[in-house]
Amino acid sequence: MKILLLQGPNLNFLGIREKSIYGDADYNSICSDTVQYAKTKGIDLDCFQSNSEGEIIDKIQQCYFDRYDGVIINPGAYTHYSYAIFDAIKSVKLPFIEVHLSNIHTRDEFRKVSVTAPACVGQICGFGPFGYKMAIDYFAK
Amino acid sequence: MKILLLQGPNLNFLGIREKSIYGDADYNSICSDTVQYAKTKGIDLDCFQSNSEGEIIDKIQQCYFDRYDGVIINPGAYTHYSYAIFDAIKSVKLPFIEVHLSNIHTRDEFRKVSVTAPACVGQICGFGPFGYKMAIDYFAK
Amino acid sequence: MKILLLQGPNLNFLGIREKSIYGDADYNSICSDTVQYAKTKGIDLDCFQSNSEGEIIDKIQQCYFDRYDGVIINPGAYTHYSYAIFDAIKSVKLPFIEVHLSNIHTRDEFRKVSVTAPACVGQICGFGPFGYKMAIDYFAK
Amino acid sequence: MKILLLQGPNLNFLGIREKSIYGDADYNSICSDTVQYAKTKGIDLDCFQSNSEGEIIDKIQQCYFDRYDGVIINPGAYTHYSYAIFDAIKSVKLPFIEVHLSNIHTRDEFRKVSVTAPACVGQICGFGPFGYKMAIDYFAK
Amino acid sequence: MKILLLQGPNLNFLGIREKSIYGDADYNSICSDTVQYAKTKGIDLDCFQSNSEGEIIDKIQQCYFDRYDGVIINPGAYTHYSYAIFDAIKSVKLPFIEVHLSNIHTRDEFRKVSVTAPACVGQICGFGPFGYKMAIDYFAK
Amino acid sequence: MKILLLQGPNLNFLGIREKSIYGDADYNSICSDTVQYAKTKGIDLDCFQSNSEGEIIDKIQQCYFDRYDGVIINPGAYTHYSYAIFDAIKSVKLPFIEVHLSNIHTRDEFRKVSVTAPACVGQICGFGPFGYKMAIDYFAK
Amino acid sequence: MKILLLQGPNLNFLGIREKSIYGDADYNSICSDTVQYAKTKGIDLDCFQSNSEGEIIDKIQQCYFDRYDGVIINPGAYTHYSYAIFDAIKSVKLPFIEVHLSNIHTRDEFRKVSVTAPACVGQICGFGPFGYKMAIDYFAK
Amino acid sequence: MKILLLQGPNLNFLGIREKSIYGDADYNSICSDTVQYAKTKGIDLDCFQSNSEGEIIDKIQQCYFDRYDGVIINPGAYTHYSYAIFDAIKSVKLPFIEVHLSNIHTRDEFRKVSVTAPACVGQICGFGPFGYKMAIDYFAK
Amino acid sequence: MKILLLQGPNLNFLGIREKSIYGDADYNSICSDTVQYAKTKGIDLDCFQSNSEGEIIDKIQQCYFDRYDGVIINPGAYTHYSYAIFDAIKSVKLPFIEVHLSNIHTRDEFRKVSVTAPACVGQICGFGPFGYKMAIDYFAK
Amino acid sequence: MKILLLQGPNLNFLGIREKSIYGDADYNSICSDTVQYAKTKGIDLDCFQSNSEGEIIDKIQQCYFDRYDGVIINPGAYTHYSYAIFDAIKSVKLPFIEVHLSNIHTRDEFRKVSVTAPACVGQICGFGPFGYKMAIDYFAK
Amino acid sequence: MKILLLQGPNLNFLGIREKSIYGDADYNSICSDTVQYAKTKGIDLDCFQSNSEGEIIDKIQQCYFDRYDGVIINPGAYTHYSYAIFDAIKSVKLPFIEVHLSNIHTRDEFRKVSVTAPACVGQICGFGPFGYKMAIDYFAK
Amino acid sequence: MKILLLQGPNLNFLGIREKSIYGDADYNSICSDTVQYAKTKGIDLDCFQSNSEGEIIDKIQQCYFDRYDGVIINPGAYTHYSYAIFDAIKSVKLPFIEVHLSNIHTRDEFRKVSVTAPACVGQICGFGPFGYKMAIDYFAK
Repeated sequence: MKILLLQGPNLNFLGIREKSIYGDADYNSICSDTVQYAKTKGIDLDCFQSNSEGEIIDKIQQCYFDRYDGVIINPGAYTHYSYAIFDAIKSVKLPFIEVHLSNIHTRDEFRKVSVTAPACVGQICGFGPFGYKMAIDYFAK
Repeated sequence: MKILLLQGPNLNFLGIREKSIYGDADYNSICSDTVQYAKTKGIDLDCFQSNSEGEIIDKIQQCYFDRYDGVIINPGAYTHYSYAIFDAIKSVKLPFIEVHLSNIHTRDEFRKVSVTAPACVGQICGFGPFGYKMAIDYFAK
Repeated sequence: MKILLLQGPNLNFLGIREKSIYGDADYNSICSDTVQYAKTKGIDLDCFQSNSEGEIIDKIQQCYFDRYDGVIINPGAYTHYSYAIFDAIKSVKLPFIEVHLSNIHTRDEFRKVSVTAPACVGQICGFGPFGYKMAIDYFAK
Repeated sequence: MKILLLQGPNLNFLGIREKSIYGDADYNSICSDTVQYAKTKGIDLDCFQSNSEGEIIDKIQQCYFDRYDGVIINPGAYTHYSYAIFDAIKSVKLPFIEVHLSNIHTRDEFRKVSVTAPACVGQICGFGPFGYKMAIDYFAK
Repeated sequence: MKILLLQGPNLNFLGIREKSIYGDADYNSICSDTVQYAKTKGIDLDCFQSNSEGEIIDKIQQCYFDRYDGVIINPGAYTHYSYAIFDAIKSVKLPFIEVHLSNIHTRDEFRKVSVTAPACVGQICGFGPFGYKMAIDYFAK
Repeated sequence: MKILLLQGPNLNFLGIREKSIYGDADYNSICSDTVQYAKTKGIDLDCFQSNSEGEIIDKIQQCYFDRYDGVIINPGAYTHYSYAIFDAIKSVKLPFIEVHLSNIHTRDEFRKVSVTAPACVGQICGFGPFGYKMAIDYFAK
Repeated sequence: MKILLLQGPNLNFLGIREKSIYGDADYNSICSDTVQYAKTKGIDLDCFQSNSEGEIIDKIQQCYFDRYDGVIINPGAYTHYSYAIFDAIKSVKLPFIEVHLSNIHTRDEFRKVSVTAPACVGQICGFGPFGYKMAIDYFAK
Repeated sequence: MKILLLQGPNLNFLGIREKSIYGDADYNSICSDTVQYAKTKGIDLDCFQSNSEGEIIDKIQQCYFDRYDGVIINPGAYTHYSYAIFDAIKSVKLPFIEVHLSNIHTRDEFRKVSVTAPACVGQICGFGPFGYKMAIDYFAK
Repeated sequence: MKILLLQGPNLNFLGIREKSIYGDADYNSICSDTVQYAKTKGIDLDCFQSNSEGEIIDKIQQCYFDRYDGVIINPGAYTHYSYAIFDAIKSVKLPFIEVHLSNIHTRDEFRKVSVTAPACVGQICGFGPFGYKMAIDYFAK
Repeated sequence: MKILLLQGPNLNFLGIREKSIYGDADYNSICSDTVQYAKTKGIDLDCFQSNSEGEIIDKIQQCYFDRYDGVIINPGAYTHYSYAIFDAIKSVKLPFIEVHLSNIHTRDEFRKVSVTAPACVGQICGFGPFGYKMAIDYFAK
Repeated sequence: MKILLLQGPNLNFLGIREKSIYGDADYNSICSDTVQYAKTKGIDLDCFQSNSEGEIIDKIQQCYFDRYDGVIINPGAYTHYSYAIFDAIKSVKLPFIEVHLSNIHTRDEFRKVSVTAPACVGQICGFGPFGYKMAIDYFAK
Repeated sequence: MKILLLQGPNLNFLGIREKSIYGDADYNSICSDTVQYAKTKGIDLDCFQSNSEGEIIDKIQQCYFDRYDGVIINPGAYTHYSYAIFDAIKSVKLPFIEVHLSNIHTRDEFRKVSVTAPACVGQICGFGPFGYKMAIDYFAK
């Protein structure tokens, strides 16, 4: 089983600057930690991050050709206005799970609505990087 | 560790009538199945369901006296307008995880906004009864 | 044929206090009068009233087990915000007819929209208790 | 007693093309059937249909001179934006009952609000042509 | 003179958990303190609290039969969406005074609008439990 | 100088039924009275009334061919939604003055905005039939 | 007969700077011209202008003591947000006529709604200073 | 192949008055020019114009009886509010193409939304009378 | 203890004209009555009224220099749009209590929202001049 | 004559996966087919597709330097929120025609408004790839 | 060169009370500091502050007669609703620069929109009193 | 001191085509002119422009590693919808100043709100390229 962990804008910046706040869990350690966990479930997990809406769409399309079995996506701020990513998810027809590290319902008003979630199987938010593992559990099931 | 699975209006009706659609997973089997799973994680899971907003608030308050460690809540349709349940969750200060069986982002317009989620640690939706297990994993962590 | 007349909050208060305004048509006389009428149509009509959203949902679910053929519902003010009753009506899949005694279009702004009507066969409003008889006629048809 | 059944745009097209869907109940048979029913209640029912907002207003005004006792109106799509018909109903001060064949609460968003209903005694929707008979019963009462 | 102090959801939880924040003024002491105060004004004050919308409506109706002279109501979160309580207040035609402990205008957006206040004589908010005494003063007048 | 007084839906019904309210000033007497007044100002005034949006547009276009010098228009309820009449006024490029008998700012919400006024020289409302004379004075100037 | 012409903010600046645009009709000439016209109708017209909302309200109240028979008011930009002027007009219960020099329906969006007009007999807009004379004619009638 | 070119309010006024602006392309020359073009594609094109919403609906219904193969419709201002024309198009189930001469996206706000387009195959706007020819090409294809 | 009773636009007009409606309770008697009441509570009450937003702000600032202990404010219509008064209240950091004579929730739509209340300790409305005494009781406490 | 066919996000994915639905008309065949058609009209058509908003803007700017005579643009989902593409089209001042394959008026609510169309000559939607040929015809004219 | 620094409501209260927060930069020191700075640029700077909307408009008009070369305006809370100040700025046709001490985009929702800025050359916000110097630099340029 | 001048979509196109309108101040001359000015203030200014949202975020992140002291950002049209750029600015915690060449308050409605400004120190708009110099002055201070 081959799954992609696709992370959007600014997520590569976790753990670089504000270690005192977010702990040692920087982008790289989150990725390797999640890949490790996936392996224990027999899942081959690849990681990809980009700040560019276009590159994220390119990658989603590539998933179709590379025959991934599913995608865990954290579209970052694009969650709230990228109808183009919504269209891309729809067009490849793979199961996507949308994950947010923070509880989007307790933050800025604009973060409450997700325009990409309707194209996904489901959405998980508020559990930090543990949310990625929850999504892996679902695919492992 | 003692956790409550608190389900709201109409959730007791799952599996009673439309077995052909939802399978054998009626309310009772979902509960026992989840309790079983919790046990393997060393968690004592109690189940409670009510169609009444008032009884749900009573129960949330009772959790404080009965010293639960956390609550998995599926407030059903109350999710979308019960500020009273929102207040109740806030007042007991226990960790709540909101779970919906279906992907609320793909259904009626009114189901897109949750007024209770801002009082919770996070929200999981779209994975059927498996979402309850994801929440248990989080508490087990 | 077995039909339930299910009335919501405050409807039990009709005719108690303001007889000079509403005439002798208090809650009890409305019920017995409608039951009488139903009998002439060969319909067995039961009456139930509650001020509690939860009890109304309980009753709607009970209708499924008690094998009613249909329900005449006047959800009172819950008409305008109880998505939980909406869900309950949907889940039992019996024919419901929504009846309002007054013309909801000529009153407060909030009364103009019904969130429960979309789950019903139809809606009747503005004819006083006579509206219940209209609904019975429909079932008798 | 003399009542008018006044039907608006496109209602004359019922039963012409899509008989397989709507049955033999075309515009003409609905009219004659309702007239028949009215007669059994001792009511003289006239039928009028027009696609033109202006002609409908003309007819409403004519009802005043022709001394009708009431009007059953199905304004079709004009229901949702014709303030001119609303004004006309108000000005003649006859009792109007608004009837819709389908349940307008379950269709397009724009159909949920009726701008003409506030000028009527009440509104009936969702019962097909039987709704016209319900209205007649009210007048017969 | 006989007055009811009717408190809604979560108000019974004051002073139980967060004494450091709210002081010793828990629900019980607030009640007894207010009852005491009323006595000095020659008023017989009864206290009732419920988390259930339906029970609150039942109680409001009971006030009519028990011949209360007025009601001081703090509907808690129901203030903001319970049109059913609004209707109940209207139907018994007793003078109600709506009291909120906090200044609802300085909190969450949803708390700014009261749907129950239009059925009351007036509204008092922001003065803590003293607000109840202000209301008693009004009745004593 | 040749001016048209163009009145829209339901204005022909003034004074027919509710003489006790509006006095003898029925549609006909308003017209003849205004024509009379115009004559004293050296203006040839023609009157036209229709309940039909299409006929009103036809008439506006006819004004171009019949070489009217200006139009006093009271579009009735069409004022609030007829973009087609707005287009018609724009296309003939004659000076139009919009007149309403009542003060549209003190009535229903929907009457506050005029979609036709932006195509006119100005608007007069609230002065009853005297408003037509004010408009004539303006043309006479 | 004693009438006040009450003009609000910035109206005193007409004709001072932009004579090429507005002609010689500066504030003073408009006033004296209108006073002149009023005299021919046997009306004593006083003029008052202020940029201050408070002074305008003071003046409106003063009209009550000074026994004016009516007021022609051009509240300038206050038209669109001064509920305080609205209240003032209501409280003195004199007939007010609201006049705007330009057609407010063809300008900025915010100018389309008048919050003061509902307290007036009527409104005239779009005819330049001639609008003041129309208002005088109405009082003279 | 038999196609109708159905044009709505005010379109008959093109080229009559403002030739200097729109050129010689008046309503008649646009019609004959388009009929000519259709003939070269083997299409029999009829032209119909009306300012009346009702007549446009009558004509749409007539198309069903007269067995047209398709309709090119320019509903003029009715585009933006005539749900009755929308219903008419739906009911006859012929292919309609909506054409606007100007680019509706660059004009008044109200022109941006078309309530009739959802009942059509597609929409063309901004190309002047050439848009009618584009529609003919589509039918010819 | 030194308190200011600060009343806004039009409140000085109470009791002048409409004594039959409001009784003898004109502005002056309300003031002296409230001052009297305050004295019994050991409070020095000053009264100030102005129709001018600017003067009200000046006075609020003056309270800081004159070392008032608190302010009872009835901002009249400014309640609903004066962000400048809101800012002024905030800047002096004295305890303000907002009082309205009528129940603002039962009147015009625009009166339901107070932009100044969020800067106050609390709000009282609906009890007539007795509301000022309620506020004094609070300060006396 | 040199024209660019510029297609936005996800349009390159047409025909790859869902051939059974969309036929053989994949992205490449649509392009070559349209280029072919353009050649018959004496037009040199280049094709460009990108999922990236930035690259689309780069290309639009390049059109200015490469001296294209016009652009046929299908901005995909960017149509509905890319003010940056709107700005780009405006800045190069070449004639753009916006084409959508589907009828955007019959799909999701967010697809009904185009923020890029106001910068174009016109818009064509609903005719599938034939829409591109219609645009070419316009340029050929 | 002669410039006015015009400050609105509550700005005179800076530095009076909350020195510990805002430093010694009270209203007077800000003024003298800015006047000093202007002098070094060869600009004669006058300062004016008022809490009254009317006085601010009076002053803006006075600038025209006193032949100022430009105005730096900080309208305080009036920024967000004073269309009268907007009109005043427009009518004198001098260059105005709007300055806010704080970043209005990070505060209350109502502070995000400026109704006066569209009448100004530009707007500067978020730099404290330094913003006034930036505006002077612009005039000095 | 090291500052970045970061310009977004379409700003590289200034001065290329419309020199007659914008003068010789094309993108390059604006950059070199601003760099020059910065040097006189002892500031090292780098310039970067991109049409791509992703590249702009990449650059903002790079600023953190390259140890810039601050950023002057003109996000072009992204100002109005790029929550991803907002997040990027927040995450690097450097002082940003948002500059717009034109007065965004006098243009299209959508340009009035900036979603990126709340993450910046302040905003300057309306002064053309001189705005960049104002920002430099602030950093130099």
